[in-house]
Amino acid sequence: MWPVKLSENFSRDADFVAGLCCCTAVFWHYNMKTPRRSFLAAGLGVSLISVLSPKPQAAAVKTKLPAKGLKKADLPTPALLVDLDLFEANVRFLAEHCKQAGCGFRPHAKTHKCPEIARRQMAAGARGICVATVPEAEAMVAAGISGVHLTSPIVDQNKIGRMIDLARKGRGLMLAVGHAREVALLAEAAEHRGVSLDLLIDIDVGDRRTGILPGQPALELARQIAKCRRLRLRGTQAYSGASTHVRGFAEREKTSRGVLAKAVETRSLLSKEGFDMGILSGGSTGTYNIDAGTLTELQVGSYVFMDVNYRVIGGKNGSETYTDFHPSLTVLTTVVNATHSDQVSVDAGIKAFATDVQEKPEPRSWPGISYRRFGDEFGAITVAPGAKLPQIGDRLEFIVSHCDPTVNLYDRIYATRGDKVEEIWPIAARREFAG
Amino acid sequence: MWPVKLSENFSRDADFVAGLCCCTAVFWHYNMKTPRRSFLAAGLGVSLISVLSPKPQAAAVKTKLPAKGLKKADLPTPALLVDLDLFEANVRFLAEHCKQAGCGFRPHAKTHKCPEIARRQMAAGARGICVATVPEAEAMVAAGISGVHLTSPIVDQNKIGRMIDLARKGRGLMLAVGHAREVALLAEAAEHRGVSLDLLIDIDVGDRRTGILPGQPALELARQIAKCRRLRLRGTQAYSGASTHVRGFAEREKTSRGVLAKAVETRSLLSKEGFDMGILSGGSTGTYNIDAGTLTELQVGSYVFMDVNYRVIGGKNGSETYTDFHPSLTVLTTVVNATHSDQVSVDAGIKAFATDVQEKPEPRSWPGISYRRFGDEFGAITVAPGAKLPQIGDRLEFIVSHCDPTVNLYDRIYATRGDKVEEIWPIAARREFAG
Repeated sequence: MWPVKLSENFSRDADFVAGLCCCTAVFWHYNMKTPRRSFLAAGLGVSLISVLSPKPQAAAVKTKLPAKGLKKADLPTPALLVDLDLFEANVRFLAEHCKQAGCGFRPHAKTHKCPEIARRQMAAGARGICVATVPEAEAMVAAGISGVHLTSPIVDQNKIGRMIDLARKGRGLMLAVGHAREVALLAEAAEHRGVSLDLLIDIDVGDRRTGILPGQPALELARQIAKCRRLRLRGTQAYSGASTHVRGFAEREKTSRGVLAKAVETRSLLSKEGFDMGILSGGSTGTYNIDAGTLTELQVGSYVFMDVNYRVIGGKNGSETYTDFHPSLTVLTTVVNATHSDQVSVDAGIKAFATDVQEKPEPRSWPGISYRRFGDEFGAITVAPGAKLPQIGDRLEFIVSHCDPTVNLYDRIYATRGDKVEEIWPIAARREFAG
Repeated sequence: MWPVKLSENFSRDADFVAGLCCCTAVFWHYNMKTPRRSFLAAGLGVSLISVLSPKPQAAAVKTKLPAKGLKKADLPTPALLVDLDLFEANVRFLAEHCKQAGCGFRPHAKTHKCPEIARRQMAAGARGICVATVPEAEAMVAAGISGVHLTSPIVDQNKIGRMIDLARKGRGLMLAVGHAREVALLAEAAEHRGVSLDLLIDIDVGDRRTGILPGQPALELARQIAKCRRLRLRGTQAYSGASTHVRGFAEREKTSRGVLAKAVETRSLLSKEGFDMGILSGGSTGTYNIDAGTLTELQVGSYVFMDVNYRVIGGKNGSETYTDFHPSLTVLTTVVNATHSDQVSVDAGIKAFATDVQEKPEPRSWPGISYRRFGDEFGAITVAPGAKLPQIGDRLEFIVSHCDPTVNLYDRIYATRGDKVEEIWPIAARREFAG
């Protein structure tokens, strides 16, 4: 039996990788060579996909691979797992909340970079999918996702050209813009390529990271956009990174309402001048139940996975732990050294867990153990007094400390239910080679 | 011209990816399904490569892609670059040092995960290449590298089976072992598969991370190995993570000599009992000029790239900056926001730079600017009084703070000389899906 299984499995995997490579290679290589003034020729690049791809006519890239009877115990470690029961509950809960609140949602794929998760979010009622990078946009469009919105600014010809290639496919693509230079570059490229682009004005409500200042500067950017035949303003974006992790619901609510007031005021200003302000996009997993009345759609990302860093912000009910969503994302590790009686080593270190937050990965089901990073390749496990020290070969599962940059370290998510792996989800949009 | 270029380029890229997928898929799927007692049948798995691979008879996977006239200015950012002049000087300097010192070197690929760099290290005289993971071992062997040595312990059937598949190819493969259970698993698998394995005893000289304790415990492990017909002891490994980054040469020398004394003593003990102690492997970029007289071969890794974290340890000549090797590895970024007069944002954040060390990325050629991370996707750039603040669209290049985990975030290295990209090197061994 196994040669057959092997052959099928490899074939699917290779098709998937080859398909993605083909799309991205075409966009990339063409755009790398394209002089600034020759955007009109780009249609040729797209048609080349049909020459180079082994299965060019497939409607969309496959978003998952079959697990074929795999169990958790079979997986090479470190492995990134999602618990399907918890994940599905998170997807349902947010969708239901938005439905009740009369608010749309366009979840952020920067969290998961995974077309299969985007597909499931769309099936739950999402208006589209937010992305932070051009490769993320490409992977989502390749998987058949509509309503892709690029929330980050881009100011170079290569990336602009690739976004125009995607917009050409007419799937409701949008881009956030926050600077006159960016608008000028997009306008020029859109004009030369004969493609229209939908834009949101990104308003800097206090993060000082991206976006234009609220009020008059935003109004002037809207006027600039209005002068460009191929650019269409659809509304505004107002993301507040400063609000997401404020500890304590009351304080978080106060912070978020304060910063969003600037966006609401600017929106009103632009509305009065006749600009289409249909969309006001923003919010986060930490503020989904604060912002839904103000924003027209939520950019929530982490809610599908949660992480230790989000668990500590506290809930609306006053609880110290934020339990609205469940921690579905874990890393499976193996104890590979047990030389000492007070400590063992697992095979997951800096390359297996993001290290940017103070919180550490937490054990999922082995009480009393603590993880601390122990170099690039290893973690050290110690135990509380009286707890049992794991032995060599034992497998330990940890809730990740920060989901987005941890996912960014892996190529696939094993979707599990109990001890069974049900599906394998490629983290396709993590590849950076196309941009 | 460009369609031709495109076609060639894609074809090479796809072959490379498909080749790797094929090898790893074969190893992985076969071993996932293999009952513990049926290792003998594994030869069939290897022969399947010729059925599944589009170009199965190629001697080795290609280690680089042509850059075809690309310039730095063309690259989508964030992009990982190596400066060839500096890199080549590092490779030469270490090789020359070892030659003069009469010491071998088997550089560690956990730093670069890049078969092309391994190939160049071999060309400079390396005895082989150290690796930290099974996928790294697979990628190196696939690229035709001999003398691959796995420095980390493995204790599960999947990884053991894959290492045996590699050992079967007879390229001088070695594994480090540090626990009786690991030796028992390797012995059982090697016996069932009819393959012999070369081992080094990994001695824990104080890190408490991997390896067996020096002295009697190591001797007993050697005796256990000697009883296994298919296992062959080749020497010992003694790596000291605690020595690598000690600031100040004198203090670093004292630390390294102190810990290595335990390894030397153990080696002598095992030698007296007649065990082959031909190899004593260890050392680092920080101690290469301390350990060369004690070790028979160096496991140096970071020396090819260097990073800010290594630059601060101080040199043998008393200098504060460690200048024996040059910082060849940088990340190229683009300024994508310039809303504020005192700060701009670049498109490289937590997903573009490792965050595990205190040091920050340092500007390569723009005086007076400072980088600080600004979320998953962005960095904030501020300037010293009087220095020029970059403008939107400007490109800024930063020396990485910690090379190994930064490389782990990318799929390819752009090998540059001046403003020109000469080659593109896939970071093939970074893929985790096979283990």
